[in-house]
This record gives sequence, structure tokens and C-alpha cells, in this order.
Amino acid sequence: MGAYIAHKLHQARGASRVLAVASTSVKNEALHQMADALWNNREEILAANEEDVRAAEAAGQPASRIDRLMLNEHRIRQMMDGLCQVAQLEDPIGERLDTILHPNGMRIEKVRVPMGVIAMVYESRPNVTVDAVGLCIKTGNAAVLRGGREALRSNIALVRALHKGLQTSGVPSEALQFVERTERESVDLLIRAVGLVDLVIPRGGAGLIERVVRHAQVPVIETGVGNCHVYVDASADVAKARDIITNAKTQRPSVCNAAETLLVHKSVASAWLPEIVPHLVRLGVQVRGCEQSLSILRDEGFSDVSAATKEDWSTEYLDLILAVKVVDSLDAAIEHITEYGTLHSEVIVTESEEAAAEFLSRVDAAVVYHNASSRFTDGFEFGFGAEIGISTQKLHARGPMGLREMTSYKYIVRGDGQVRG
Amino acid sequence: MGAYIAHKLHQARGASRVLAVASTSVKNEALHQMADALWNNREEILAANEEDVRAAEAAGQPASRIDRLMLNEHRIRQMMDGLCQVAQLEDPIGERLDTILHPNGMRIEKVRVPMGVIAMVYESRPNVTVDAVGLCIKTGNAAVLRGGREALRSNIALVRALHKGLQTSGVPSEALQFVERTERESVDLLIRAVGLVDLVIPRGGAGLIERVVRHAQVPVIETGVGNCHVYVDASADVAKARDIITNAKTQRPSVCNAAETLLVHKSVASAWLPEIVPHLVRLGVQVRGCEQSLSILRDEGFSDVSAATKEDWSTEYLDLILAVKVVDSLDAAIEHITEYGTLHSEVIVTESEEAAAEFLSRVDAAVVYHNASSRFTDGFEFGFGAEIGISTQKLHARGPMGLREMTSYKYIVRGDGQVRG
Repeated sequence: MGAYIAHKLHQARGASRVLAVASTSVKNEALHQMADALWNNREEILAANEEDVRAAEAAGQPASRIDRLMLNEHRIRQMMDGLCQVAQLEDPIGERLDTILHPNGMRIEKVRVPMGVIAMVYESRPNVTVDAVGLCIKTGNAAVLRGGREALRSNIALVRALHKGLQTSGVPSEALQFVERTERESVDLLIRAVGLVDLVIPRGGAGLIERVVRHAQVPVIETGVGNCHVYVDASADVAKARDIITNAKTQRPSVCNAAETLLVHKSVASAWLPEIVPHLVRLGVQVRGCEQSLSILRDEGFSDVSAATKEDWSTEYLDLILAVKVVDSLDAAIEHITEYGTLHSEVIVTESEEAAAEFLSRVDAAVVYHNASSRFTDGFEFGFGAEIGISTQKLHARGPMGLREMTSYKYIVRGDGQVRG
Repeated sequence: MGAYIAHKLHQARGASRVLAVASTSVKNEALHQMADALWNNREEILAANEEDVRAAEAAGQPASRIDRLMLNEHRIRQMMDGLCQVAQLEDPIGERLDTILHPNGMRIEKVRVPMGVIAMVYESRPNVTVDAVGLCIKTGNAAVLRGGREALRSNIALVRALHKGLQTSGVPSEALQFVERTERESVDLLIRAVGLVDLVIPRGGAGLIERVVRHAQVPVIETGVGNCHVYVDASADVAKARDIITNAKTQRPSVCNAAETLLVHKSVASAWLPEIVPHLVRLGVQVRGCEQSLSILRDEGFSDVSAATKEDWSTEYLDLILAVKVVDSLDAAIEHITEYGTLHSEVIVTESEEAAAEFLSRVDAAVVYHNASSRFTDGFEFGFGAEIGISTQKLHARGPMGLREMTSYKYIVRGDGQVRG
């Protein structure tokens, strides 16, 4: 296994050197060739995917998981569109970020360059394979992909097609390496390949991400886990609050930017909770309340709500479940978020500019919202035109990561014989 | 030990929340108070330092190491000046890096914020203690410092003085935590404190840095190791080449941006090596040559040079030793640097714009130079006004790291009830 991974990484490293200096048109051409190859090889891809789906069904996987795994012609079209859209985005590589003129006449330019080799470790969705390759190649990075076991046959077929596309382009096909070994050891080898992998990005459940973060020896960007809060302040417009928590909780509960806990200021709790909670319950949301919220709701004759335990405050449900807590003050809300938040997306609903300013400056998260839904934490919504993941760490990139976040920079110094005195 | 470190980290985390929203004037005032406190407590500091120096002498430490350790009134003045200079630099915190207007009317601002808690792990130089605290506080970060055993008494006295300074300022003195335990375990605990440490920066020898990079579970920035090359091209101006290699090798050989290997194109080697090598040897440089360079030099009757082994190509001497290799082409020079370089600083000396462009784009390093000495890789030379270290990794920051490189950002989204459709 060690030799298998090392071989792939050396091939990727070699290709990354060619790709790093490839022109924008060569890279875009490669993206279009890969899109065409997906279409031309769709039968093989769909046949392989059918086997994966059948195996997942036989293993009794839940319907939501099988849906994530399943491909069809429409989804292949979507992957192709993704590649073509990335081709249309501006190439970040070569962008001059800064120019410094040294008093001795040297010109120092800070220029955007690729990372080199980016390893992605992910789970069942096969579209991640295509998305990641597109984003890596556009940014001049070689991609080393290690997908989940459930999607192995689909991924192998997709990668075979993508390689065919690359072969008719100016990008070396070694720039895409797919790890077919799905044992845990293959991940461990990738994330410890100091000097061969410049960055590893894990995408998937909390367990996968934590394991990668804890054991990686190469630089890693932690992504995705979002225990997001919506805080409804004393000065909230309750109609906005209703729209925002409804959207943040129910529009797509399975994703990281969905809300998991609703915090409500005590001064609005008695009037508002009996209105919003039954509304959410009607939409299929299971509500778990703190003692105070339970007592308010029961006083109003509403009992379709269970008691929250301490564990609820730290759980990312990714499901139609919502924890509800009454807080005494803005400070208490910020303290709760500080204790339980995962630095992802946090919302305050208020008409008070003062309370908003306090919340926005004091809450430490990738994205802090005033009067808008947490669901907007997304590379496309932020206008990046692409997204490789959402960073929840503070080093390098925070929040939605687009093309620029997949790059590094270097300083180019031009002199005329300058030496240091 | 676990409880000791955890207590310090929790105190730092708490203080970091206050410091993150402190005004520029409060932070600058704290820097000036700390500078004053160093002066007011100089007797205690110098007495403690004398004990460290005496212990190092008794242990038979080399003079260079004792010089790094030693403090005197002049050096205390230098540390004070450093703090006051940092106070004069622009505060990066709060800088608006970007504004995105969403079509639905939301305003998304990308704003510079502190990292939170920065841990520094370093070796014997006590001035690092003061520098690191100054840079952390200016950037709104709490500092957790773990210095080397040799400087322990000096560091404790310095930190006591700095704490006195903080006590008369608006910055909580818990923002500076010094780890007095110098066992290896204290480092291990710091670099595994996921959620409590936002960034660890190791500064010191290659062994320390490698250990931190390999075992850290928190984000880390690899610094410093510089196996830097000067490549003298076929089209080089040999007078510039002479000045540049002389400066890069001899001006301060003990630092990471000094050159370690000289690569010479074969077409200039016969004429130029017999000129430059004796010149360097007269300056005290020990030269270790490849077979071809040895034969050229011996043909000219110069034999004060030994044979390089493969190990020489990968050694960061940090001393007056230089490896010399004749290469067949620009490609061969780039390949050598790709194999042995440490992504720090790489130089080409040439009058050919074509060769320069090739080298500058293809060589992967934090700083690539055309006709200038590698010794300029330095935060002050780049005009940053400060430096916390030189990054040799590609994530987050590359090359000299100043105040901006000690920050993260967050997105602040202001809406009027927007939800996602």
C-alpha cells in the first residue's frame, strides 16, 4: 500500500509542475474535454453506478444515502455543466496581489501560484470527484482523490472518463490521481505524506473530518461541521425571525449551514415561542426545548416538544430537529454560541443596530449574519462561482472556499545585483 | 502537566475574546507600558539572565549560543524599541478586505480578525519572547509562549515585567501566558490542544520544527529551514554573481536565508569557478565541490576544496560552508533545486530575461530572486515593519510573515430578512 500511494503522489507531483505553468486556455480546454468525455462515456459510468447503487440497497443503506450515490443522465449533465462553468471563471493563477518597491531598487511582486498537490478525502457522493478535479485543474493543482467505498465503481468509471478527456488536452493526465484502495490506511498514508501533499481537504461527516485533522502531518483545512445558531434578540422583528429560522432549519436540513439551535431572548420568548414552535412542528420539525421554553409552551397548551439535554446544545442534527433555548441577554446568547458553536455560521435577528454590532464583532465564526438566513454560507451565494468546501478553521481560508482559496502565493524579486548591507 | 497547560490555554482563550475587540489605542498603550516595564525591571531581568548565561557556560555551550542567550542594557533597549515600533505600525484588525453585494440586497463584508490564541514554541533567544508578545497583542491575539530551557530564568523575568506592563493597560494580562515547564510533554500538549490553540508557530532548529509539524493536531505554520541556492546561469554577469554569492553565503551565514549551494552553468564554470572559489575560501568559506568543479579547480592548481557527497546537497549548513555544483543547463539547475530545496529562497543570476522568466515561474519557493541576494527574505526588508518568522509552507502565508499574516478574516453579512429560495 505504501508504494502504491507513493507512486501516485510522485506522479501527481511531477504533473503539478507542468500544470503550475500551464496557460489558462490549456486548463480550460482540459475542463471542456473532460466534460465531453463524461458524456461520451456515460453508459459505462451509469452501469458502474448501478452496481454501486445495487450494492448499497442490498446493504440496507437509507434512501437519503442512496440518493446521494445515484447518477443518471441529468446528473451527468450537471457535472458537465459544473466543469464548463469553472472553465468560464477567471483564472486566479498569476494574479499580482501586491508590489513592493525596495528602497535599493528591487521590485518585489507577490503573485498567486497553485498549492501544488491537493488531496481530497471524501465520502459517498460521486459528483465530488468531478467537482474537485475541475477546481484543482483550473487552479493549476494536481488532484489526488480518495473517495468512499460505496461509490468506488462509479468513481473509477468517472475517473477513467476524465483521464480520457485529459489525454486529448495539454494537461498531463497524471494530474488526476484516484486512490482505488478504500482501506483506512490509504487515508493515513495520504495525510502523512509530508513534502508530497501540499494540502489535504476532508469532506464528509464529522468523524472523517476529525480523524483527518487529528492525524494529518500535512497542512489540512478543516471543513464543514456546522452547529449553527439563530439568536432572536429582544429587539427582533418577529416576522423576520420567523422567516429566518424557518428557512435556516427547514429549507435543506441535511447541510452544514442549516441552523441547529434557536436562541430566544427572554423578553420576546413568551409571546413568540407559542407562535413559532407550533409553526415549525407543523413543518415536520422535532423541537427540543430548555426548561423555560417548555414551561412557556405548556402554559399555552402546546406540549408537542421534548426536553433538551446538554448534548442537544452540541449536536449537529443535520435533520429536522431543532434545539430551543431561552437566554437572559445578548451576552448569554454570545456565551452559548462561544461554548457550543463550531465557527461556521451564526445569526442574530434584531432591529437594534447596537445589538447587531455587538454580536457581529464578538461572535467568532466564519460567517456572522444580521437579519439573514445562515443558509447563504455557500461559495455560489458569495459569488465565487465555485466551492470546494466551507472552512471552519482560521488558518488560510475561512467560510466558503472558491478558486482563490485553493491557491498560495510566492514573492518574485527582480534586482540588478543587490546585496544586503 | 495536562491541567497546568489546560489552565493556561483557557485563560488565554478568555483573554483573547477581550483582546479581539480591543481598540488600536488600547493595544498600542499596552505595547508602550510593556516597553516601560522592561526598563523599570531591567535589574531583575539582567540578574536572571546572568544565571542563565552562567549555567550555559558551565554546561560548556559554544560561544555563539551564549551570545544568543545574553542580555544587556543595550539589548533590553532594542527589545523596547521593537515594541514601540510595532505600536507605530498600522493595525491590521478590522481592515475590510472585500465587499460583496448579493443580488438579493445582502451586503457581505470580508473583514480581518485576529486568529485568537497563537502558541509559539522556540529555543534559546529570549528576545523572541518580547517580539512575539508585541506582535500577538498588536494583532489582537493572545500569546502562549513556550521557550527553551536554557533561557528559562530570563524568560520568566521578562514575562513578569511584561505582565506588570499589561496590568497598567486595558489589555488583560492573561493575554500573555508563559509555559514554565520545559519538558517535551509541554510542547506536545500545546500542539494537540484542538479548539484551544488556533495556530502554533515553531521557531528554532530543523529538529524542533519537524517535531512540531509531525505531531501537531492544531494548525501549524512551518518556518525557517532554508536550503537556499544561487544559480549562476550561462548568461550571468559574473561580477554580479560574485557579489551575490559572497553576500548570500558570508554576510550572516547562521540564518535561514543564507545560501548553502552554488549551482554554476557548465559554460561559465571553467572561467568563473577558479575566480570565485579562492575568493570565498579567503573569506573563510569551506567549499565542497562536485566532481566537475573539483577537476576545474585542480586544473587551475587550486586544491583547498573537498569533495561533496550527496548529503551536502540537502544540508542547511548555517555556517561558512558552501556546496558547489556544475550543472549542464537551466533545466538541470531547476531540477536540482526542486529535489533539494526547502521552498524558502532561490536565486538566479543571469542577464537573459528568458532564463530569468523560466526560473522565476518554475521554481517553487516562497521567494524567487533574479539578480539579488537571498538575504533579503525578511519581513523588515519587505517593508512589513515586523516579522514573526518565515513560512516555508504554502498554506496561509508564504515567506516573511508580518502582522497581516498573524490574522484571519470573517465574513459579516447584513440583511433585512433574506432567506434562501
